[in-house]
Amino acid sequence: MVKPLILDEDRLFPAEASVRSVARRLFASVRDLPIISPHGHTDPRWFAANAPFPDAADLLLAPDHYLYRMLYSQGVPLDRLRVPGKGPAERADPRQAWRLFASNYRLFRGTPSTLWLNHVFAQVFGIEVALSEQTADHYFDVIGDKLRTDAFRPRALFDRFRIEALATTESPSDSLEHHQAIRESGWSGRVITAYRPDPVVDAEHEDFASAMERFASFTGEDVHSWQGYLKAHRIRRSHFIEAGATSSDHGHPTAATADLSDLEAESLFQRIVGGSFTPAEAELFRAQMLTEMARMSLEDGLVMQIHPGSFRNHNRLIHQQYGRDKGADIPQPTEYVRALKPLLDRFGNDPLLSVIVFTLDETSYSRELAPLAGHYPVLRLGPAWWFHDSPEGMRRFREQTTETAGFYNTVGFNDDTRAFLSIPARHDVARRVDCAFLARLVTEHRLDEDEAHEVALDLAYNLPKQAYKLDRAEPPRLALSA
Amino acid sequence: MVKPLILDEDRLFPAEASVRSVARRLFASVRDLPIISPHGHTDPRWFAANAPFPDAADLLLAPDHYLYRMLYSQGVPLDRLRVPGKGPAERADPRQAWRLFASNYRLFRGTPSTLWLNHVFAQVFGIEVALSEQTADHYFDVIGDKLRTDAFRPRALFDRFRIEALATTESPSDSLEHHQAIRESGWSGRVITAYRPDPVVDAEHEDFASAMERFASFTGEDVHSWQGYLKAHRIRRSHFIEAGATSSDHGHPTAATADLSDLEAESLFQRIVGGSFTPAEAELFRAQMLTEMARMSLEDGLVMQIHPGSFRNHNRLIHQQYGRDKGADIPQPTEYVRALKPLLDRFGNDPLLSVIVFTLDETSYSRELAPLAGHYPVLRLGPAWWFHDSPEGMRRFREQTTETAGFYNTVGFNDDTRAFLSIPARHDVARRVDCAFLARLVTEHRLDEDEAHEVALDLAYNLPKQAYKLDRAEPPRLALSA
Amino acid sequence: MVKPLILDEDRLFPAEASVRSVARRLFASVRDLPIISPHGHTDPRWFAANAPFPDAADLLLAPDHYLYRMLYSQGVPLDRLRVPGKGPAERADPRQAWRLFASNYRLFRGTPSTLWLNHVFAQVFGIEVALSEQTADHYFDVIGDKLRTDAFRPRALFDRFRIEALATTESPSDSLEHHQAIRESGWSGRVITAYRPDPVVDAEHEDFASAMERFASFTGEDVHSWQGYLKAHRIRRSHFIEAGATSSDHGHPTAATADLSDLEAESLFQRIVGGSFTPAEAELFRAQMLTEMARMSLEDGLVMQIHPGSFRNHNRLIHQQYGRDKGADIPQPTEYVRALKPLLDRFGNDPLLSVIVFTLDETSYSRELAPLAGHYPVLRLGPAWWFHDSPEGMRRFREQTTETAGFYNTVGFNDDTRAFLSIPARHDVARRVDCAFLARLVTEHRLDEDEAHEVALDLAYNLPKQAYKLDRAEPPRLALSA
Repeated sequence: MVKPLILDEDRLFPAEASVRSVARRLFASVRDLPIISPHGHTDPRWFAANAPFPDAADLLLAPDHYLYRMLYSQGVPLDRLRVPGKGPAERADPRQAWRLFASNYRLFRGTPSTLWLNHVFAQVFGIEVALSEQTADHYFDVIGDKLRTDAFRPRALFDRFRIEALATTESPSDSLEHHQAIRESGWSGRVITAYRPDPVVDAEHEDFASAMERFASFTGEDVHSWQGYLKAHRIRRSHFIEAGATSSDHGHPTAATADLSDLEAESLFQRIVGGSFTPAEAELFRAQMLTEMARMSLEDGLVMQIHPGSFRNHNRLIHQQYGRDKGADIPQPTEYVRALKPLLDRFGNDPLLSVIVFTLDETSYSRELAPLAGHYPVLRLGPAWWFHDSPEGMRRFREQTTETAGFYNTVGFNDDTRAFLSIPARHDVARRVDCAFLARLVTEHRLDEDEAHEVALDLAYNLPKQAYKLDRAEPPRLALSA
Repeated sequence: MVKPLILDEDRLFPAEASVRSVARRLFASVRDLPIISPHGHTDPRWFAANAPFPDAADLLLAPDHYLYRMLYSQGVPLDRLRVPGKGPAERADPRQAWRLFASNYRLFRGTPSTLWLNHVFAQVFGIEVALSEQTADHYFDVIGDKLRTDAFRPRALFDRFRIEALATTESPSDSLEHHQAIRESGWSGRVITAYRPDPVVDAEHEDFASAMERFASFTGEDVHSWQGYLKAHRIRRSHFIEAGATSSDHGHPTAATADLSDLEAESLFQRIVGGSFTPAEAELFRAQMLTEMARMSLEDGLVMQIHPGSFRNHNRLIHQQYGRDKGADIPQPTEYVRALKPLLDRFGNDPLLSVIVFTLDETSYSRELAPLAGHYPVLRLGPAWWFHDSPEGMRRFREQTTETAGFYNTVGFNDDTRAFLSIPARHDVARRVDCAFLARLVTEHRLDEDEAHEVALDLAYNLPKQAYKLDRAEPPRLALSA
Repeated sequence: MVKPLILDEDRLFPAEASVRSVARRLFASVRDLPIISPHGHTDPRWFAANAPFPDAADLLLAPDHYLYRMLYSQGVPLDRLRVPGKGPAERADPRQAWRLFASNYRLFRGTPSTLWLNHVFAQVFGIEVALSEQTADHYFDVIGDKLRTDAFRPRALFDRFRIEALATTESPSDSLEHHQAIRESGWSGRVITAYRPDPVVDAEHEDFASAMERFASFTGEDVHSWQGYLKAHRIRRSHFIEAGATSSDHGHPTAATADLSDLEAESLFQRIVGGSFTPAEAELFRAQMLTEMARMSLEDGLVMQIHPGSFRNHNRLIHQQYGRDKGADIPQPTEYVRALKPLLDRFGNDPLLSVIVFTLDETSYSRELAPLAGHYPVLRLGPAWWFHDSPEGMRRFREQTTETAGFYNTVGFNDDTRAFLSIPARHDVARRVDCAFLARLVTEHRLDEDEAHEVALDLAYNLPKQAYKLDRAEPPRLALSA
């Protein structure tokens, strides 16, 4: 039986009539606001080349770790889903992969993936039947046909999605050529980069050596001396700022920061680049570099983001056969109170610094993060992240942070996605969940409805723009020109 | 004043009319399904001997740690509740104990114990007045009278409860004689065992030495040699499989696993059986044995269950005077991401292995367990356990695991109880809470109602049957016959 | 635009009509009960001197860390809010500070501060317009005018608030002179003290040496000998009991307890008072002193309160410039199961001891605290504390503790505040949130409405009175008269 695909107008709103009614009114005032996407992982090449996207499987399934991790957990081999591996494994053809996904779509019941995908299917592609084994080919054909039209090229979709600004994330060892190409193309879409120095900061990263080489060649600095290394960061940050960057981003296993003396830092750095260091030294170096990045942010104005707490590549076999970022990253308990203290002791009271902290450990919301952000001028809370970027996850975020940190120490929504077509869906979910939360406060007489309208607007639009300095005509201050 | 005892048809359903209405429809389709009870602690002797149960106090109160722990916390001595101690303490008579319980029944307000007990009182015994000091004797008499009738013998109740399969839990040092007697009796009830080797795996267990002796005598192996010890496990597992077992169960203080070399394992084992080992070595041995059990599961097909995180016998005085399992076990923080890695590195991608993980630390639901189960093919999540086997606990379980692990990496409900008469009540609660959760998803347009019906059926019946391999005509593969 | 200030009669009740209707009925029966405030931080000098309070800024803003921490987190300097510092900084004048607060009042949207303040504005001062930049001066004038009248002096407000008992908190190095003055004044208000020995127990406290000096002078004991030190505690406890104390209070960084031998304790004490000790020794001494305090409670009947888990003075700069208690205390993960065991092994089963445990780490509610309190006769759970003293925080407390510990191992509400005028508001919030929780249980048929009425009364009035022994005509037993 083929079922219709319907996106209900009231989706994600509580059933109770008065709450729903307030939620509807709040949402009506923010649903059509432009999208600010200040942190994500789309590929700038898409907007530089503006080439058509491939088929449904290679656009929507094979790159989406939310999807293939769930299928893999139920015994579906990654090859059959066209997940690219390291070896010459035989991969299923795209239509076969799509059929396999479609016939297992029930696995995603109750997950945000269905919300996002159904939104993409209905709103982006105009499909009117639900995905199932029976409709798999119909989907594959319709999506394929549309993707070959000009209206579905990256820039056309960017405009259609009403994206006002979109940040990608690049490493210091990236050439930024696609961002340059976008700027030189004359296209008006604001696609900017963000500075993610992990590959040249994390000495345990498998690409550390090669990233350091490119880091040297892009900057002309001796990146194996401590001062040259710091200088190279300053130079690359200025390049990134020229490519529109307003933020840096740091994905460390923990939130540890350090504030070593110059001598200690230099000595540690020598052990790091010398290649003979302990895990504790690698961790201390990452910790010290967060404080160094904060120091540079005070010079050049980049907003810092800290994304800690993921145990990367947990599955040894998958890491060996498929490499990084294959759905095998697992959150771990993450401490902030002691971890952030060295950086905060140094810079925590400087209103010119802005540090946005994220977590994969929801226990830190009410216990650590809201109290920290509700006190320190430099701290803001990033939205519910990754595994928690979901209706229940967002609800818990608001319920557990608002009473201590308020709304104004948060920064609105990040879609944080590489799934470009899902960006409107993700912002739609976030706006709906925030409006539902606000509607509950209104009906419980904890907030007036006029205030809730202001807050809804701030969360959907003003806060991300301000927190990521996207409201400034001028780029952030430059520390130096290289 | 004597109050009527009424089980409302809508109990545990949210008050909001549209959600309640969906919940009712979902529940109507699962309420009368047979009960699958794949993990619990009932006494097989009951079904072997089929003797009448004793009086209300000795059946419902004295063995139920949920009840006497609460009364004890408010100052009621355990002796007065007929909790059996080690010494020759004078115990209250059953009627006195029951009266004491009844007059303190208010202590259980808001706890699942009242839900379970009221269900037993009303549905099993047909009592129509609420329990109180005034009705204590009436209860004691009615229950006593009924228990003396044939309709209230164990097998009659088993049939009346529509139990399709019921697993008990035995140690390798158990003779399994009651299971044999059940099989030989010709009675059609499916009462099976489960392999719980803790007494011969936990060298810190007070009965370790005597359990090892029986382990040797049941297998004829030299259980003080590493190879003989492993062989003895294989033999006992085959005996348990003959007694219907489809699963093993492991109740360790932590979730630690290890993957030692043969030499390391053998050397560790010698220290363990030699009796001079550190707590860390006892822990490492338990950890290694989880990996050994996984290896054997790949041979003989038993599903593994890991129940970690309880600090057993926390109250020194109670342990001295009353022994183990007296309501003084307290959960502790439990880590899974690093703990399970050795076992997962070894066997985590083998679709023939199945490991069901439980937790007493709810913080691990969204942070660790759902991400792990949403990736690894071998992992499934056991239901909300012990202190969390309650309406709020089950709701948190679904809210915190579904968005990452989906429904299909969970295994339905375990009643996990020694309170036989409460089994229908516990499954009733679980089905209602799951239907209430699904109804919210439906009314928030996150799941279609036809899908919710399928999920409700899966959670109540199909998933436990599949996850515990109770859907197979044949028993699991045998590793060897002893 | 000036908005009216309205306290809705149904505030904090769920919107769903049947739940709200039950909540209303429950609340109607407890809203006007006298206030029991068994733990807080008001200044006894207020009630001794009965002098008029100062202006709005110095009464409501400058002493309230909930308010200035939020403003500080958004970049407002503390001086401009009249927060007293250590140096001769120029502070804003009161009206300027109040205007600054008023014009940033939106920062508190969704926080309990707005609930408390709006209640104070409307109910205590009769203000009918909402606070904003436009109404700041009106507020400042109205509040200032009223504070100068006799009806707004401390004792008049105490009576108007219907406070039946109010506990302040003093150190052993406090003279208790204000409590003496209150007693001698003939005024009938019951303002009592509580014994908070942290300054003479925490050797890392900056005032340790001077507090020990006063401790010696108030007791005449050699407080630098272990026996003299213990004797001094006994003496001061008896003085506090004479000043009405029924409880002691202990604010330690962790919940650690210890049970050292006499020799070990004496030797540790010598290192402590000798001034050369490690942080671990300071921690061990605090831990040992909790057990010593429990021992003394068994002699003199004081109820113990343990408030662990705050990382005090986290912001180095603020601590240097403004001192302690300036909104920079941050919760940290807090373990109870192992921490409390030494004390519980010693005294955990003695029904004459009562220990009320609090937490800033909500993960411990369902995992550790409810299981502990649901077993040990000496333990009770304090209400949701500090950052969690809020509608969502209180709801989580009930949802996560009730099913295991019930209602009767909790002790009702503590306002725990130094903001005297907000005491009725805080009790109003607590009573409403408890009634809302109970109403949900009633409508979900988990509790009968007549039972819910009893529980609501117990939570609002009976339990705090009993748990803190405020229901006794006689003071607790005296250990000795000094």
